[in-house]
Amino acid sequence: METLYIVKIGGQVIDDPDLLTLTLDAVSQLPGKCILVHGGGRAATRLAGKLGIEQQMVAGRRVTDDDTLEVVVMVYAGLINKQIVAALQCRHCNAIGLSGADGGIMEAHHRMDGGIDYGHVGDIDGVDTERLGSFLDTGLVPVIAPIVADIHNGELLNCNADTIARSLATGLSSRYAVHLIYTFEREGVCLDPDKPETVIRELTSGQYAGLRASGAIRDGMIPKLDNAFAAIAGGVRRVVIGPAEQLTALVAGERGTNLAP
Amino acid sequence: METLYIVKIGGQVIDDPDLLTLTLDAVSQLPGKCILVHGGGRAATRLAGKLGIEQQMVAGRRVTDDDTLEVVVMVYAGLINKQIVAALQCRHCNAIGLSGADGGIMEAHHRMDGGIDYGHVGDIDGVDTERLGSFLDTGLVPVIAPIVADIHNGELLNCNADTIARSLATGLSSRYAVHLIYTFEREGVCLDPDKPETVIRELTSGQYAGLRASGAIRDGMIPKLDNAFAAIAGGVRRVVIGPAEQLTALVAGERGTNLAP
Repeated sequence: METLYIVKIGGQVIDDPDLLTLTLDAVSQLPGKCILVHGGGRAATRLAGKLGIEQQMVAGRRVTDDDTLEVVVMVYAGLINKQIVAALQCRHCNAIGLSGADGGIMEAHHRMDGGIDYGHVGDIDGVDTERLGSFLDTGLVPVIAPIVADIHNGELLNCNADTIARSLATGLSSRYAVHLIYTFEREGVCLDPDKPETVIRELTSGQYAGLRASGAIRDGMIPKLDNAFAAIAGGVRRVVIGPAEQLTALVAGERGTNLAP
Repeated sequence: METLYIVKIGGQVIDDPDLLTLTLDAVSQLPGKCILVHGGGRAATRLAGKLGIEQQMVAGRRVTDDDTLEVVVMVYAGLINKQIVAALQCRHCNAIGLSGADGGIMEAHHRMDGGIDYGHVGDIDGVDTERLGSFLDTGLVPVIAPIVADIHNGELLNCNADTIARSLATGLSSRYAVHLIYTFEREGVCLDPDKPETVIRELTSGQYAGLRASGAIRDGMIPKLDNAFAAIAGGVRRVVIGPAEQLTALVAGERGTNLAP
């Protein structure tokens, strides 16, 4: 099976022009097919602030109301997506910027969570692996914004970029040996988050369960690792979590935390 | 040769939800392959106003400065493009929203016009007909936003939607029998713009030259018709100019002004 790298970059990379340049340099030189999934960053919050759009919260979580949806579609699928595409094109990397709605590459529906409506937020039902495969096999590098749509009613929906990366990775693992690379601001999964030297180089699901029970792994790492182990369970060959500025080393297995079944 | 319809819709359609619905219904039922090119509408001006971005003018023409470029990329390639894509997807039409930068479908460069710099404005150098053909031949309906890029430096550029439609039409006329449909708010090219019954049903380039010399055709119709006759000269099979709400009849040749060589 051919190797496919699915790289997820978040706000930390998008908000730092130098780090974004470094990351896109590395993406354009990956030794195989690639999909880049990007999150949002501060631009959407900044734009919403300038437009006087107040954040609505329900049950402690942010709600994507009509105005907020317009902002995230503009910023994620518009500005950030096209800036990344143009920057990759000028690195001779044939990037194509897509939301989940484009070409029907992802099916999604409006999330209803225990009777609570978080507004225009989507959960993913499936991935059109044939279509994405045809893009990848003709040299395109899909750059995916975290916006999906419910094609039954045409509703655009906000979606988590980590979840999009995992859905693409599991869906495409039937066609490719998928390496899923989650970049973030740390060296990897660390026993002590303040000490990069405590990074765990290899983490199994059994070890994860133990470290989670003992409280050594907590907070924001838990949904990230749940997503990562769900990808492994879904057939993804390898998941790596580590610092964006070391993307080449992450791909080579020389940095970050590598997850195994 | 297979028929390809290239339909251009402007602000008049985009700013009117009922007319947009009607137009997308018709697009989703076209009897052949299709590309939809959209312009901007008032949303970009409205957003720029809310953000306090002042319009800069040079030699009587608007300049696309850094802030304005961000606004048009967000609104055209983000909001409008993805709203149209989701609306077409829910009509079982496999739309894919693209800027000229995506997949390298259009090459462009920063316009320098007689030493005057209009900011981030692009002129089109070429179209990747192989790539667009592969999209069309696998059932996709490209929805093109009027944003392009200079891939030599990664600069995003604002571009006129009429010009994009014409460039796509001439480029793709080597592969398809292209019918280029420019929709606008009138019945067609009229001898008296206030009287729809004076519509010219068939217009040749010779007649156009005469009507232009006599002043019967003037103002905004001139760049539109120049674009249209350039398309005919470039190998496009047919150009129709007419009202968006009659798209099906325009395609059938029953309404609007048809241009011949």
